Amino acid sequence: MMSYRFSDRMRRVPESFLGELFRVSNDPDIISFAGGLPSSAAIDVEGITAAAKDVLENEGRRALQYTNTDGFLPLREYIARRYRERLKIPATAADIQIVNGSQQCLDLVAKILVNPGDPVGMESPGYLGAIEAFSLYEPEFHGVPLGNTGPDPDAFAALLSSRPLAFFYGIPNSQNPSGTTYSDTMRRAVARMCEDTGTLFYEDDAFGELFFDGKSRPPVKKYAPEHTIMSGSFSKIVAPGMRIGWLFAPEPIIHEFNVAKQAADLHSNFLCQMILHRYLETHDLDVKVRRVAGVYGENCRLMCDLLDDAGLLHTTPSGGMFLMATLPPRVAAMDVFSAGIREGVAVLPGVPFYVNGGGEDTIRLNFSTATEEEIHEGMERLVRVISGLA
Amino acid sequence: MMSYRFSDRMRRVPESFLGELFRVSNDPDIISFAGGLPSSAAIDVEGITAAAKDVLENEGRRALQYTNTDGFLPLREYIARRYRERLKIPATAADIQIVNGSQQCLDLVAKILVNPGDPVGMESPGYLGAIEAFSLYEPEFHGVPLGNTGPDPDAFAALLSSRPLAFFYGIPNSQNPSGTTYSDTMRRAVARMCEDTGTLFYEDDAFGELFFDGKSRPPVKKYAPEHTIMSGSFSKIVAPGMRIGWLFAPEPIIHEFNVAKQAADLHSNFLCQMILHRYLETHDLDVKVRRVAGVYGENCRLMCDLLDDAGLLHTTPSGGMFLMATLPPRVAAMDVFSAGIREGVAVLPGVPFYVNGGGEDTIRLNFSTATEEEIHEGMERLVRVISGLA
Repeated sequence: MMSYRFSDRMRRVPESFLGELFRVSNDPDIISFAGGLPSSAAIDVEGITAAAKDVLENEGRRALQYTNTDGFLPLREYIARRYRERLKIPATAADIQIVNGSQQCLDLVAKILVNPGDPVGMESPGYLGAIEAFSLYEPEFHGVPLGNTGPDPDAFAALLSSRPLAFFYGIPNSQNPSGTTYSDTMRRAVARMCEDTGTLFYEDDAFGELFFDGKSRPPVKKYAPEHTIMSGSFSKIVAPGMRIGWLFAPEPIIHEFNVAKQAADLHSNFLCQMILHRYLETHDLDVKVRRVAGVYGENCRLMCDLLDDAGLLHTTPSGGMFLMATLPPRVAAMDVFSAGIREGVAVLPGVPFYVNGGGEDTIRLNFSTATEEEIHEGMERLVRVISGLA
Repeated sequence: MMSYRFSDRMRRVPESFLGELFRVSNDPDIISFAGGLPSSAAIDVEGITAAAKDVLENEGRRALQYTNTDGFLPLREYIARRYRERLKIPATAADIQIVNGSQQCLDLVAKILVNPGDPVGMESPGYLGAIEAFSLYEPEFHGVPLGNTGPDPDAFAALLSSRPLAFFYGIPNSQNPSGTTYSDTMRRAVARMCEDTGTLFYEDDAFGELFFDGKSRPPVKKYAPEHTIMSGSFSKIVAPGMRIGWLFAPEPIIHEFNVAKQAADLHSNFLCQMILHRYLETHDLDVKVRRVAGVYGENCRLMCDLLDDAGLLHTTPSGGMFLMATLPPRVAAMDVFSAGIREGVAVLPGVPFYVNGGGEDTIRLNFSTATEEEIHEGMERLVRVISGLA
């Protein structure tokens, strides 16, 4: 009988809810507010099909062969141009590396920057996928409480002044899980503090295109370009199944990142890179994104109204796909999770989002996947579950 | 001015030739024997295009959405069935995890098994992509000389008996870079030795379908199923641009591997998984593979004949895409590389394939990419370069 020995880093991975969530999201009897899927209705299947035919019929032999690690140059040029036009920040294709969805940035950025025991700063609550990816590099996590306008300024300043961090990771736009957006004052303060202390800010921008008002917010990258690594993704604005995201970072970081990317998987799937680029070339992404954000905005308002009706405290996002609600006293989120599954509604307990503990009375709710009718029905079930536990 | 600090592991990555090689492979004036591309002519663009249309038109919304980390179940079932039918070894979908090309197995297997300083065994010469991927987990490499029928049995036994390895990595079928195939005696000996010492054997089987005689060889996995992790890839037999490979391993390994895969990039691109499965369902892979292997066999024989004519020693592969040649006394492979680029022929120096040094007088030659005419012309240039240096 063989006994297998695993590396020490594997013991650091927190118990994951994501596998359980994918199972739940396939059960037709359960209305899920627990996952993080973009609306399937928002995926332009016809447009992508046409782009796929075009690429395969005209450049199929190239699209199906090996390519370079950096990614498809015209796609990187598109991304850089969009940064220049949408956010008014300088960017060229040389600053962009294509990855398998922006989750891969979390893995590879930690790989190139984190030694075991290195301090890594994060928002608290922080993104679960980031906690999982970083954990494998055995950092010492330091959570900074996230308020309504960004990380607590005093705690943030104290952390950055106290020790050299490998980096601070944050999601300034419509954060996952809280839905919080940093104020412009906070963005400038974060940038200044990073410059003053020589700290790298890892700005995960998965949701920057999904503000309900259709307006963009200036990224921290704009105020501290040399101190900011930015990641982006087409998963929330075109289609997640293609797994195309990117890193946008200063040259020395891109260089090391490219070495790590090559060792990790040589390159991202080229066929999808070419299909995606063809699609973007022939469609107006802004029109599409405004429509998606509009629907998410209506869903979010509905969910907030129903939470208000039930007397539950919650964040009030201005974009993205998630909000957080606070449970009544003595109601534990884990109990709401378990009872919810039995009643046909899935929510995500807040606990795993807190690297230094806390959040026992919080749940994360997704408003991008369910329809209006499902939100009504699911929230009714959820309120019933919570009342039963109170 | 920001100064960036990188993790210690980044200092372990050997200088890579792969980036340089992709550049060389795009220069029309250079005949490249240095890369590792499968023949573009062998990619069934029409068949894959039809499969892509079918998937996108009938199940596009599903194919473009997020999915689970394991991979597309029908594709995993296809892979398992092929193991049962082709190699007569037991396998089910539960034993298979889909990855972004089998290079990702190298990264994630090392991630779950290797602590810094752990001994890892490898063939010498060994696969460069594996050396790069493993290096980032800071192992202590132990190379075992590779002979014509597999690793030197005494050195192999001595290494496995001397200390507990994280694993021993090998390519028993048409190895990259040497083209060597283990004898059946050696496969059984490797299996027995791994069982006797509780060692994991990482059996990279990128080329097992590409024997020129069309016959398969029993894998080490057959003789020591609980002690063998196997990886496979569609890159060499269908199309590399889709980046679809897999790990086939005992359940405890698959479980940890899945955790690491989820943290690394959530899942592999789903659109390509579905397209590939549709293609495999509607085409006879055996017919296609036999045709490709036949062409590679002819190319290989031609290259061996031309090396014989020039009086250069070389390995004589029975499959795969690579062979190794030995240079005349006092001719250094690095000089052949540099002079070759100037003369319009690219080869890969053997040095980076040797984890404990050596190989200064060896070059790796690829015979899958070039046409017959290009092999004639390229070998003429190469012989001229070597004569000029001798």
